[in-house]
Amino acid sequence: MNDYSEKGLLPAGLADMLPPAAAREARISRTLMEVFAGNGYQQVKPPLIEFEEHLLEGSGAALASKMFRVMDPVSHRMMGIRTDITLQIARVATTRMKQDPRPLRLSYSGQVLRVHGSQLRPERQFAQTGVELIGPEETTADAELILLAREALNALEVRNYSIDLTLPTLVPTICDGLGIDPGVAASAREALDHKDAAALENYDTPLADILIALLKTSGPAKGAIAALEKIALPDAAAAQVAALKQVVAQLEKSAPDLMLTIDPGEFRGFEYQTGLSFTVFARGVRGELGRGGRYRLMDGEPASGFTLFLDSLMRAVPRRPADDRLYLPFGTELETGFALRQEGWKTVVGLSAEADIAAEARRLQCGQYLGPDGIKKLS
Amino acid sequence: MNDYSEKGLLPAGLADMLPPAAAREARISRTLMEVFAGNGYQQVKPPLIEFEEHLLEGSGAALASKMFRVMDPVSHRMMGIRTDITLQIARVATTRMKQDPRPLRLSYSGQVLRVHGSQLRPERQFAQTGVELIGPEETTADAELILLAREALNALEVRNYSIDLTLPTLVPTICDGLGIDPGVAASAREALDHKDAAALENYDTPLADILIALLKTSGPAKGAIAALEKIALPDAAAAQVAALKQVVAQLEKSAPDLMLTIDPGEFRGFEYQTGLSFTVFARGVRGELGRGGRYRLMDGEPASGFTLFLDSLMRAVPRRPADDRLYLPFGTELETGFALRQEGWKTVVGLSAEADIAAEARRLQCGQYLGPDGIKKLS
Repeated sequence: MNDYSEKGLLPAGLADMLPPAAAREARISRTLMEVFAGNGYQQVKPPLIEFEEHLLEGSGAALASKMFRVMDPVSHRMMGIRTDITLQIARVATTRMKQDPRPLRLSYSGQVLRVHGSQLRPERQFAQTGVELIGPEETTADAELILLAREALNALEVRNYSIDLTLPTLVPTICDGLGIDPGVAASAREALDHKDAAALENYDTPLADILIALLKTSGPAKGAIAALEKIALPDAAAAQVAALKQVVAQLEKSAPDLMLTIDPGEFRGFEYQTGLSFTVFARGVRGELGRGGRYRLMDGEPASGFTLFLDSLMRAVPRRPADDRLYLPFGTELETGFALRQEGWKTVVGLSAEADIAAEARRLQCGQYLGPDGIKKLS
Repeated sequence: MNDYSEKGLLPAGLADMLPPAAAREARISRTLMEVFAGNGYQQVKPPLIEFEEHLLEGSGAALASKMFRVMDPVSHRMMGIRTDITLQIARVATTRMKQDPRPLRLSYSGQVLRVHGSQLRPERQFAQTGVELIGPEETTADAELILLAREALNALEVRNYSIDLTLPTLVPTICDGLGIDPGVAASAREALDHKDAAALENYDTPLADILIALLKTSGPAKGAIAALEKIALPDAAAAQVAALKQVVAQLEKSAPDLMLTIDPGEFRGFEYQTGLSFTVFARGVRGELGRGGRYRLMDGEPASGFTLFLDSLMRAVPRRPADDRLYLPFGTELETGFALRQEGWKTVVGLSAEADIAAEARRLQCGQYLGPDGIKKLS
């Protein structure tokens, strides 16, 4: 027998989720999946582990150092525990669902594990719930995803959230258009992401002028778009801004209530995105609620999607009042309890005769009990 | 780029669950958790991995060879991926929830992984959903659990299921009462479990007579109880039969529709159970739907519970007709779609102008589309 000490019971970054948190997380995930299903997104469930080379392909390589590995005694090949689900959905879309009509709308909800937590997210296991929209190049797809995130957050009654749009490939595209050396382009991208105005001034013109102008565009979407349009950009970069403008216009028309900001130079965490991307924040809530954006599948097919993080959402979703637990004294007929449960009560049945029914109900943290004259509320 | 061949894409025993199966499994799990919550069982969610010694303690040792192990780079200790969730719930009950009032009712739903599949269950990852009732010794607790399994299976509309009761400690208790050598007792238990009448006759009297009489009791509960009571058993064994009789009497009174059988000698898969146990089967469905029984926590506290296996349940739960997917042509107002989703439709929005709305709806596997005169059903 082990006298577990509470401290050190579980490895760092791993936790038991107790009542009522576990039920709350399940409810949040269920609500999200219902909204996704309502919008035609069909659930897929890839396994927790698979051959490591599939998890490390393409953009997965960035997560290699975060992945737990185990040997498969059946195939004698290495397997990895997934660190992310998006890559698995992309794999399913390019293999078993390759023949399914496009646009292909898929959803998922599951656990991921990472060898190390990060400073912002010390947890090593957390739940991801999200969608992928595979096939369309149209900006209407980007708008659909952001409107879907909005519908999901509204269903959860999250308040004061905002969507921060970014174009992670804008600076590389500008540099490419100006014929700038890739090393210089990478450092310029970093400097803009860090909002380092002094560093930006050191580049040659016209790059320095463009970067400083970009720096000043960050902020609410309407003003940002107007400012972005005033910057003289190479054609390919101007096309990205034009697409962003279209998405913003559709969002403003369909959902004028949505808080939209633009930070055109942000790219951290979007290293593998290939187009319009976004982050979801809620005022006063630590950590991002979710993020998403455009990418390409292994076979080049366009795709976009987003993931919501259940741990952050737990901090953003309002708590509901405690459950209505109803104590049913020992000997209550099964059918009586069943009928009360059908009405929505959570019943707790006495397993032996009570000396004092009300006291027993209170001891078992019930707010009510069934007395001879019906349901009594405990004071 | 990897041209995944479908075969060999995933390790043996691991699978992608595609539409509509993944949503169906999620619905089954959700229904179970709702029934459990309605009966006062509170959800807990332990992590997928923890220190291996905690997963291997007590009855966990039997699963050691089935457990994937990974090194924790943070603590430099070995961790295991859980093969079962019951043990984790027992750990939570004896540590962080030790001070919570008893009876403690807990529920869980999650994935487990095993290094090897078995012949009956080749899958190496599967979902378990279940409950643990911690604290009570009373037979009313055993009855509550079986009635709860019934309520859950009925909510899922599973038909023709039966509960097979067993007393895995009955033969050891008889042998102990008769002062029989433990080695002989173990072989007698095996012979009865295998229903090997010839082998049973080779034991000395009165053991041989008792074992042969026990063999003949297997069958529908009412007759089995009557037959069991006629056997002259040592006191401790007779007490187990008396407790079983009490549980059966309560079940027959509360739920006369329940198909109950008794196989008093069965113990395979119940090696660590310490009292009344049961298996759930459905006629014509491969594999057991679930199993449960009495055990003791590490600190000796009595407990009982059961687990339902989602893979078996997927074969037993009737399929629902396909989703009502409704195609909304390009340009449909957001509010129109939202209102239809609130009515229960699953909407699929057009992302670009269609040449033929009905054809596009059909291509996207929708059964209906929204035309200028309202919803049209596709023939």
